Amino acid sequence: MIKFLTKSLEIDTNGFTDIIDITPHLRKILKEDNYKEGQMLVFVPGSTAALTTVEYEPGLQTDLKEFFEEWIPMNKRYHHNEAWHDGNGYAHVRSSMLKPSLTIPFHEARLLLGTWQQVILIDFDNRRRNRTIVVQLAGETQ
Amino acid sequence: MIKFLTKSLEIDTNGFTDIIDITPHLRKILKEDNYKEGQMLVFVPGSTAALTTVEYEPGLQTDLKEFFEEWIPMNKRYHHNEAWHDGNGYAHVRSSMLKPSLTIPFHEARLLLGTWQQVILIDFDNRRRNRTIVVQLAGETQ
Amino acid sequence: MIKFLTKSLEIDTNGFTDIIDITPHLRKILKEDNYKEGQMLVFVPGSTAALTTVEYEPGLQTDLKEFFEEWIPMNKRYHHNEAWHDGNGYAHVRSSMLKPSLTIPFHEARLLLGTWQQVILIDFDNRRRNRTIVVQLAGETQ
Repeated sequence: MIKFLTKSLEIDTNGFTDIIDITPHLRKILKEDNYKEGQMLVFVPGSTAALTTVEYEPGLQTDLKEFFEEWIPMNKRYHHNEAWHDGNGYAHVRSSMLKPSLTIPFHEARLLLGTWQQVILIDFDNRRRNRTIVVQLAGETQ
Repeated sequence: MIKFLTKSLEIDTNGFTDIIDITPHLRKILKEDNYKEGQMLVFVPGSTAALTTVEYEPGLQTDLKEFFEEWIPMNKRYHHNEAWHDGNGYAHVRSSMLKPSLTIPFHEARLLLGTWQQVILIDFDNRRRNRTIVVQLAGETQ
Repeated sequence: MIKFLTKSLEIDTNGFTDIIDITPHLRKILKEDNYKEGQMLVFVPGSTAALTTVEYEPGLQTDLKEFFEEWIPMNKRYHHNEAWHDGNGYAHVRSSMLKPSLTIPFHEARLLLGTWQQVILIDFDNRRRNRTIVVQLAGETQ
């Protein structure tokens, strides 16, 4: 039977380019509803966070944080900050570039990620946040 | 009933990293066909435009334009320009990085975007363009 | 009839930001199973390669390679390299930024790509690789 099912995931973050491995949560969601074949769409509503994959190990987490700070620095002048005074212009630009959506195929009830490939939420905002991640399953159930 | 439905959207742009909020058009398309649960795939055919989300306010529009010009400048030397003499090498590189596709989940007939998160088309080309955006709905209709 | 079907594609690469046009393979896969309306999800398992689209011509291939080398250089200091000594920290950061997934809509059994828009696999790793690309079809078959 083909089904589209929308679930969600609550994640507490520290902001400031906090990088969080959400793969275990995604695997758990996939199991709960007996999906066999299809795709998982992961989406973060909001404009200061984004999703991608990485080999989740401490060295690369530091590399990504240093990389973002060099590429799109926090303390540059942003027009957004002049209007809104919330100081998170950098976070908006970073998440527009990385984008809020990621789709992962699954086959025989298993996400087709590489062995050293984890799905990460990056929260770029300049404060702690509670994020609600949308996880939508589409495909055939058993 | 599960349906896949392919629609399109015509957008006139000014080129030169023109940033256009297409969210109202996407909401209208979602309503037209009574979709309840599923996902909307937005795709821009062509290699000098791309899609992402942003808080659509004038400050961030300027921030994004300045950011792209600093990151991937128009007037650098591009091998593409030497062969094709159309001067839009920068536009190709920018859109390859941002990518032409975005998938947004919907639930109870509502796109699950954040309150301050709009879907934008960025047209990087160095002339006015008429763009045809593909909007494909997949999911359950009422 | 609506179907989700997971196929795969073997691609040999030279690594070192090798850029490979996989569009002909994707068109072939679409034809094999008589899909009419829907979407093709392309996904590269692994954390040192990524997918996007580009006008596939030699000038832009060189532009992209030079661009990546300037943006995220191979020979910078990466914390990943200090821990793992495999020297491909740059490849991890590049592929996290470009992301491993791309979804392309199709209509009347034809991928809705632009005429000068090809789907490319970029292998950033610092050695030759054999990549297995996941190609998942979702939609209506004839």
